[in-house]
Formats: sequence, C-alpha cells, structure tokens
Amino acid sequence: MINDIIDQSKQELKRGLTMLGVLGALKEAEYGYSLSQKLASMGLPIETNTLYPLLRRLEKQSLLESFWDTDTSKPRKYYKVTSEGIKVLKILSQAWKDYNDVIHQINKGGLTHE
Amino acid sequence: MINDIIDQSKQELKRGLTMLGVLGALKEAEYGYSLSQKLASMGLPIETNTLYPLLRRLEKQSLLESFWDTDTSKPRKYYKVTSEGIKVLKILSQAWKDYNDVIHQINKGGLTHE
Repeated sequence: MINDIIDQSKQELKRGLTMLGVLGALKEAEYGYSLSQKLASMGLPIETNTLYPLLRRLEKQSLLESFWDTDTSKPRKYYKVTSEGIKVLKILSQAWKDYNDVIHQINKGGLTHE
Repeated sequence: MINDIIDQSKQELKRGLTMLGVLGALKEAEYGYSLSQKLASMGLPIETNTLYPLLRRLEKQSLLESFWDTDTSKPRKYYKVTSEGIKVLKILSQAWKDYNDVIHQINKGGLTHE
C-alpha cells in the first residue's frame, strides 16, 4: 500500500511540473513526437494521452501557437510558446522557486537525512 | 483569463507539495491549529478544509499517528509522523529534487530570465 501512496504523490508532484516543462521545452518549435523525446531527455517523460490534450488546451489558452510543416512527406503540426506563454512560464518558475524554499525548510531539520 | 491559468497551475504545484509539507512539519507533534500556523510560517498556508481531511487520510494510511492531550482545559488531538511516514517523506523529497533538475534544465536556456 505504501508504494501506491508514493506513486500517487509523485504523480501529483509531476502534474504540477508538466505545464512548466511543456512551456519551457517549446521555446523552440517541436512537433508531438520530438517534444515527447525532448521532455523525456529532460527527465520529464509524459505519456502521449496526457501530452496531446495538454498541447491543445495550452493553444486554446493562447500560451502556445501552432503551425503545419507540409514540406516533408508527412505533414507535421509544430507548437511553440507565445509571449503570453513565456509570461506564465516566468511566473510559474518563480512559484516553483518559492516552494523550493519550503522544501529546504522541511529538510533543514535533517528529517529526511536521518 | 491568464490569471486564472496561473492560479490553477500554482494550485497544482502546491497540491503536490502539501503532503510533503505536512509530513515534514509533523516531525514534532502538532494539533490542527498549531500545525496550520507552522505550515503558514514555512510558506505553505493550507486551508482548514484541505488540512483536516488530509490529516485523517494520512493517519488511515499509517503515515501519521495521533493521540489526545486531555491535560489541558480543551482536549486536543495531536498528530505526529510515523516511521512509515518518514520513509515516504524521504522518497518524495528525493522525487522533488529530481524534478528540480528538470526546472534547472528549463531555466538553463535563459528563457525565464529574458
């Protein structure tokens, strides 16, 4: 049971990070597959059935923009972060840093290193 | 709309941190009110209607134990982390550190400091 609890909590931590990771990774335009490879290499693997709906949502929210590359034999939809998306990314990165201070306080007592 | 998106994303980041914060803060026994004060001072304010159900859930999962102090005029229920809870805390702190590396990679490109 303890493993289920840990998995679930890790998932929660990851969920909060996912949007940050996707916005950050799309500083350069990527298509779905290249993005998922990039995220995995950053240590943030995201399943396709999570990633694709998230891309569509972020585009609808004007945090991402997309365009089709039809020059290749297989047309690909590319996504890139917008200036609005960069604003959000900055604010969320700051929030993450602030929460990091919380973690430092938790660890300060040496609890997690006993 | 952008503010709603930011608020929601910050909430998601915070949700993942909450369990970590509560387990860490209960290295020393606290009752509900003293715990919420302590969490707020750590930079992690948690609303009562989130905190109390979480305490009951963590106790049910054997990550916290509780006892009543009936010596005071007003009996108080204290919570404290169990050895099982400390195990979970260590693992989640490590997961947080791993995800921190992801954030560093995102920031490395200078995107969030433009």
